[in-house]
Amino acid sequence: MINTNAFQVLSQLAPEYKKTHLKTLFSDGNPRFDEFHIHIPGMLYDFSKQKVDHKIIDNLLQMADEMQLSEWIEKLFKGEKINTSEGRAAWHTALRDIENPLPEVSEQWTKMETIVNELHNRQLRGYEGSPITDVVNIGVGGSDLGPLMVTHALEMQKHPKAPHLHFVSTLDARQLEQLLVELNPATTIFVVASKSFTTIDTLSLADTAKFWIQQSTDCPRALQHHFIGISANPAKMTEWGIAENLQLNFWDWVGGRYSMWSSIGLTIALELGMEGFKSLLAGAYAMDTHFRTAPFKENIPVMVGLIGVWNTNFLDLSGQAILPYDSRLKYFASYLEQLEMESNGKHVRRNGEKTSYRTCPILWGEVGPNAQHAFYQLLHQGTERVMADFILFIHGQTKNERGQFHHNLNIANCLAQSRAMMVGQDSEDPNKVYPGDQVSNTILLNEVDAYQLGMLVALYEHKVFVQSVMWDINPFDQWGVELGKKIALDILNRIQTCDSEGLDSSTVGILKTIWKDNNEC
Amino acid sequence: MINTNAFQVLSQLAPEYKKTHLKTLFSDGNPRFDEFHIHIPGMLYDFSKQKVDHKIIDNLLQMADEMQLSEWIEKLFKGEKINTSEGRAAWHTALRDIENPLPEVSEQWTKMETIVNELHNRQLRGYEGSPITDVVNIGVGGSDLGPLMVTHALEMQKHPKAPHLHFVSTLDARQLEQLLVELNPATTIFVVASKSFTTIDTLSLADTAKFWIQQSTDCPRALQHHFIGISANPAKMTEWGIAENLQLNFWDWVGGRYSMWSSIGLTIALELGMEGFKSLLAGAYAMDTHFRTAPFKENIPVMVGLIGVWNTNFLDLSGQAILPYDSRLKYFASYLEQLEMESNGKHVRRNGEKTSYRTCPILWGEVGPNAQHAFYQLLHQGTERVMADFILFIHGQTKNERGQFHHNLNIANCLAQSRAMMVGQDSEDPNKVYPGDQVSNTILLNEVDAYQLGMLVALYEHKVFVQSVMWDINPFDQWGVELGKKIALDILNRIQTCDSEGLDSSTVGILKTIWKDNNEC
Repeated sequence: MINTNAFQVLSQLAPEYKKTHLKTLFSDGNPRFDEFHIHIPGMLYDFSKQKVDHKIIDNLLQMADEMQLSEWIEKLFKGEKINTSEGRAAWHTALRDIENPLPEVSEQWTKMETIVNELHNRQLRGYEGSPITDVVNIGVGGSDLGPLMVTHALEMQKHPKAPHLHFVSTLDARQLEQLLVELNPATTIFVVASKSFTTIDTLSLADTAKFWIQQSTDCPRALQHHFIGISANPAKMTEWGIAENLQLNFWDWVGGRYSMWSSIGLTIALELGMEGFKSLLAGAYAMDTHFRTAPFKENIPVMVGLIGVWNTNFLDLSGQAILPYDSRLKYFASYLEQLEMESNGKHVRRNGEKTSYRTCPILWGEVGPNAQHAFYQLLHQGTERVMADFILFIHGQTKNERGQFHHNLNIANCLAQSRAMMVGQDSEDPNKVYPGDQVSNTILLNEVDAYQLGMLVALYEHKVFVQSVMWDINPFDQWGVELGKKIALDILNRIQTCDSEGLDSSTVGILKTIWKDNNEC
Repeated sequence: MINTNAFQVLSQLAPEYKKTHLKTLFSDGNPRFDEFHIHIPGMLYDFSKQKVDHKIIDNLLQMADEMQLSEWIEKLFKGEKINTSEGRAAWHTALRDIENPLPEVSEQWTKMETIVNELHNRQLRGYEGSPITDVVNIGVGGSDLGPLMVTHALEMQKHPKAPHLHFVSTLDARQLEQLLVELNPATTIFVVASKSFTTIDTLSLADTAKFWIQQSTDCPRALQHHFIGISANPAKMTEWGIAENLQLNFWDWVGGRYSMWSSIGLTIALELGMEGFKSLLAGAYAMDTHFRTAPFKENIPVMVGLIGVWNTNFLDLSGQAILPYDSRLKYFASYLEQLEMESNGKHVRRNGEKTSYRTCPILWGEVGPNAQHAFYQLLHQGTERVMADFILFIHGQTKNERGQFHHNLNIANCLAQSRAMMVGQDSEDPNKVYPGDQVSNTILLNEVDAYQLGMLVALYEHKVFVQSVMWDINPFDQWGVELGKKIALDILNRIQTCDSEGLDSSTVGILKTIWKDNNEC
């Protein structure tokens, strides 16, 4: 990025744009919206409340060319091994190519469909022969957040025969233990979702679930009926005890945080039916096609990505707030926290050099109207300069009078907040001065359904990819999480053997405090 | 802050500490923990993994003296009107002074206890005479996050006669509509919690609930039995239709984000019983007493606050991660997002001048082990320099073998992550280089119970207060949220009358897109 001509030009331009108040760009009724939005079927992206004009956009597009964005996009879609540090492709787009699916992808769809239909038709049965009524997804990170986010968002589209879905992810087993009190082992199936099938969080929870099933029955083959496995490592699934017919696969070219499009999405399919799951894929595929074919100037993921880079690296904004104005998107910010920070929270370029510039900002968020009553104070009057994404839907959940009133309130609040952040307010009372000048995107969609949600998630995936190309980093590995895992196993071993030799005094001090309280060691 | 002598000294010292890698402070087995932790009954605060030594601490303490922290603490506890922009006290400490309660506080405790006992004893009945089984808390911000966070955290301590609790906060009414499908109007009571009793989010939801009750019965006085009101504005409650015997009060000297200690905590008392609620207050009171009486050097909230200022204003760290290692604290980060960012997300000093320094950083978080699989990548290898708070409990939830194993894993992960962030790792492979040098606090408590949770929340409240004194801002107002509310009402009116005249082109463009899709206006 820094070696491009466009970077030099943008760096020279930036100070002027930093000084210019956002509201002056709208002054005298400037019809900025007409020029600075992109409208594709189902989605409108408004970036008129960003500090950009045609000069900035042209230079950002030139920077994209200099960084060979087109070539990178082709590599992504062709399944080239662009995750170089792991020697793998990052081919999540192949998972949703509903027009030309790979044979192995189709095969998994068929296996998923079999499980879904069997469960919906009460043919999937527990060790006593009773139909399965409850499904517990055990997974963490990518094996949890996607299915959790989507199934929560689309609960209103639930298939009439959908089972009760539960999600368990926390290592301390609190969620699981609480569930096990309520569930009936004879009618419960666990979905153990782990790409490697070695994640200790997931496997330790699966072991606890296994123990629970075993304690409930003398049937020697009970376990065969109560665990579905989803992994890129079939051997490990078999070894753990997952029956062959209840194994689903995906592949090393599917990153964990991109895996909800794969068989990891089983719980989504169980909720919506296979048709609903395919609709999610179709929405993502529509965004893929747009991303791959639209000219960059009219390309939503490209523009969202480039403007984010402009904000981060030139205007020096320091955080990214995600503000969906629909409570069904409750887990969307958590989902994006992983997608963005795990992908682009890197400091090493593809050639191994350290970056001399900032990469992924801190990203956080909350359902918009709730966040208004929580942290918007900082957005309006704090000292941190933040970029915000407002996500709004044209149609609400219900068409009756009260529902429409609530939805209108919701729209009014969303538009009011982005306007207030832009325009600010002067006052003689210093407490009532709102500096404004806070940039934002608004993404407007039709309604919360599988297709639109597929589009929205794919938009953010591609935004992340665009930014990774600008920052010259590999967004598909996650080496940063390895060291902690290694040290955790060491400390676990030390806890079990009362050994604190050679550790730093902080770790030793805390361990000894715990041991003393427990009268141990 | 900037006019103190200590500020000058600290500014001069900072560059050296920025350059010094955190791990060098631990080199040669330096027993830093011994010097840099504070242990009080029930809580240990380890700040040895901060870039401080005695010189820094002495200067931070001197800055506290120069900023008259002692005097401010006394004003806080004496109920002086230190929320000057609203001419009010901020006397949440009086709500938990269990030794010398104010008469009006005791009176509310009695009223709460009556409602709690009546409900537990099946004496609180709906319009048909059936006992109330379900309680729906309708509130947003401070009237939602505290009760939601605490009742979730303490579910294991539930009173055997506790009702089913539900929380509804989102303006779009999705949560409420979903609940109303499941609940029986004859056995459901709504708690309408709003300090002003004018918050449109809350009142619009309450109206929808009212409509639901009215539709279910011809009883003219049905509403009298199905709504409890909690507000500082009794007249508004009466006007809305809350029966006198179901009105609870608090006062203008209780800030919304500090209100869970007041009658807003009713749902907590319904879950735990009044004794459990008092135990929460007692924990906070213990922290209050510590904060008010301990020398600053041994004072946990003071030290957490001062070190945060050192990190923010001298070491230029840019975000604050909140990482509880217990899934029961799922909503704790959301709670703190409001507490900290709404309190100190300000740019105006008490004298009305603009601050020339940063105040509240962006704060976000997640249950630790889950965040490890989501955004820790950025903490370990990103370009943002972040401060982290690890919150850990000595005792897990269950004492059986599996439970202890899960808890040990949890402890091992927590200690491993703070150690990895401190020490980092060199490698010949640039992808496996961990810069380390990321500072953190560790707060160790005994277990997740009402008393300890009370201590923990009060710790953060006082930390926020300490920082506000250093930054010379009023943490108790929230003028920043007013402008958006005003504009929202204007836009709501425009939506209802199809009027977009005079608005900026972005707002107009989005409104017209919505109208066109709806064939409206």
